[in-house]
Amino acid sequence: MRPKALIAGVGMTRFMKYPDKGLKELGTEATQAAVADAGLELGDLEAAYVGNCAAGLVTGQESIRGQVILATIGVGKIPIVNVENACASGSTALSQACMAVTAGIYDTVLALGVEKLSHPDKMKSFAAFAGAMDQDELNEMLEALTKQAEAGGAEGGAGQNRSMFMDVYAMAARAHMENYGTTKEQFASVSAKNSFHGSMNPRAQFREALSVEDVLNDRLIVEPLTRSMCSPIGDGAAAAIIVSERKARELAAKKPVRVVTTVMHSGWNHTEDEPDTVQLCAHDAYEEAGVGPEDFDVVEIHDASAPGEIMAYEQLGLCPKGEGGKLVEDGHTRLGGRLPVNTSGGLLRKGHPVGATGLAQMVELTEQLQGRSGERQVKGAKLAMAQNGGGKSGNDAAAMVVTILQAD
Amino acid sequence: MRPKALIAGVGMTRFMKYPDKGLKELGTEATQAAVADAGLELGDLEAAYVGNCAAGLVTGQESIRGQVILATIGVGKIPIVNVENACASGSTALSQACMAVTAGIYDTVLALGVEKLSHPDKMKSFAAFAGAMDQDELNEMLEALTKQAEAGGAEGGAGQNRSMFMDVYAMAARAHMENYGTTKEQFASVSAKNSFHGSMNPRAQFREALSVEDVLNDRLIVEPLTRSMCSPIGDGAAAAIIVSERKARELAAKKPVRVVTTVMHSGWNHTEDEPDTVQLCAHDAYEEAGVGPEDFDVVEIHDASAPGEIMAYEQLGLCPKGEGGKLVEDGHTRLGGRLPVNTSGGLLRKGHPVGATGLAQMVELTEQLQGRSGERQVKGAKLAMAQNGGGKSGNDAAAMVVTILQAD
Repeated sequence: MRPKALIAGVGMTRFMKYPDKGLKELGTEATQAAVADAGLELGDLEAAYVGNCAAGLVTGQESIRGQVILATIGVGKIPIVNVENACASGSTALSQACMAVTAGIYDTVLALGVEKLSHPDKMKSFAAFAGAMDQDELNEMLEALTKQAEAGGAEGGAGQNRSMFMDVYAMAARAHMENYGTTKEQFASVSAKNSFHGSMNPRAQFREALSVEDVLNDRLIVEPLTRSMCSPIGDGAAAAIIVSERKARELAAKKPVRVVTTVMHSGWNHTEDEPDTVQLCAHDAYEEAGVGPEDFDVVEIHDASAPGEIMAYEQLGLCPKGEGGKLVEDGHTRLGGRLPVNTSGGLLRKGHPVGATGLAQMVELTEQLQGRSGERQVKGAKLAMAQNGGGKSGNDAAAMVVTILQAD
Repeated sequence: MRPKALIAGVGMTRFMKYPDKGLKELGTEATQAAVADAGLELGDLEAAYVGNCAAGLVTGQESIRGQVILATIGVGKIPIVNVENACASGSTALSQACMAVTAGIYDTVLALGVEKLSHPDKMKSFAAFAGAMDQDELNEMLEALTKQAEAGGAEGGAGQNRSMFMDVYAMAARAHMENYGTTKEQFASVSAKNSFHGSMNPRAQFREALSVEDVLNDRLIVEPLTRSMCSPIGDGAAAAIIVSERKARELAAKKPVRVVTTVMHSGWNHTEDEPDTVQLCAHDAYEEAGVGPEDFDVVEIHDASAPGEIMAYEQLGLCPKGEGGKLVEDGHTRLGGRLPVNTSGGLLRKGHPVGATGLAQMVELTEQLQGRSGERQVKGAKLAMAQNGGGKSGNDAAAMVVTILQAD
């Protein structure tokens, strides 16, 4: 989609575990911050898209999540649409807000992503992830893993005490090691790099800078993933104010950032030779924007696990197939390198409250393109890309979104 | 919204309890029927919006419901967006599909609504409705009702063995009786009329024609509502294929129906003097379409309870305030009357699998405007309206949608 839409303001909560805050507190904090950042008032909002993944399972709020959140700050009456696409729910809210503005129906639309994942009963948090797979398939996987554990493997309890997605990522990581000689040290380099970036981001869940050694010596979750190679459980919200070109001219002083394109694909059962969802999205996005992977100044990638970032480098064409490990090891994707990736700290360190993640990427990239990222600033950043995926459908993610932003 | 979009085909399952069918079977049946009705193939779909309310609570499929359903018939790769707005989820899917086509991004988009509400554990079905209210507010209501029951009232167990929404409807019904002299017989007339319509609809959950006496003598749920004044728990799916004007010209032989407007408003805390969400939607829809309430040939109303239909007559301006009871009692809204309402049988008799309801209204009205409703046909129907609401936010529905369709 080539929207006629711009981001006029962004805002987010810090990502972390908030034992005393729920969807309402988190969602309204991000909304108010984004509206203020755009130089607007809540009353200027003409419609809202609210992305959330798992509130039904974690908080019991199965329906009308957006209405319940926004009512607490007096936002109602306007159309509010709740959207869901697992960990890509935030980007889905963004894309729908862009579509509404492109259709010429509204000038000012809120895209909000919010998630409350932490819960005194940790099993509830894991259930949230399990809800993002086909339940029939999930039950088959759990059965297979249980049998494997009974047969004496070290994998016992898979999916019981962690997100099933880490099993999926670990399997892909082992295949990457076998096929391309990627090393555990290279996976650890991703976490170390993102921890360095996150150490400079006051809104990151983790602020500690880790060495490659630290990451390797962390607790093993499932081979080859140590704990700091997996995104944490946390809560938070992020929002963007999407405006029409007409409205953007009014707000010119705020330097709105152009949404050049936002492309979505869903998973399906594809063969080895067919492009996966990230490749499909990148292909369409580059074509629509008339750019290539070499043109970006800063990129946010869906690093739900450290190997995921390396694989995404390759899928997005940032390096040739099989060379993702080397790309990060050589420092090219570190701040100061040729293409800084996940300057926010990424999902690994900034955190991954799933429904909020896609919009938190927009927060980081908008600020980068407006030159206000402080010590994380990529100098002269003009063109940025975000990749955000979620769930599992067929042999791919259920939903994948690639968005390209440009300083206007 | 004045979309540039038409409905090229519709399809639905019969609404009923399907102990052996899940979301996948129901959703794919409606999708395939709608695609065939439009004279298209599944491969022609360019995007899909899938509305569902409660699968997380009822089936455990908290996320990516649309992807999981559509994957079973090989529909993937295209963008799939899951939308939710409680009982208005189906109309929300419709409105977003119209928006995507209006934005000029796609020519052919699926709007699917699907719900699996029945469950061996009936409490799960009731929980689904409870999820469509602010959870904090719900807990307060339950506490108050429990206290009332302890004090010796006949209302014991409210919300425990029925949808909390029936308590909300009953309260509004009692107020309507007090303020306007509306009678229990008039409420029963709605159910009797809709049961007559439903008796001619092979896709209705209930096919028995009831007299006013039958309805009054049915089991009391909560004063003044008897069982047949409340919509039942059931399962089902409904779908519409939304196409651009360009695509509609290609499919001219199928007589696509124009979506003149679809208007959405969210609830908020309004005063007695301010318009409610139905009034707001009707006002905007009439203005956008350049029509008045006297111009419609056939109307589908959200009769989740019988009094709800009477109140909607008034809110939509089909009769003056307080005269809704008389309108139905005098037979004006019965097939053959001056403005037939709920020729499908409505939610009361066709059934109300919540996420599917808004699109089932589109199935009925599209067929009416195409002159293929058989013995339920309203002769020469040219202009139709649907009203679909869901959830509770502030002192109103959380989401309300009014859609106007016209034979093209």
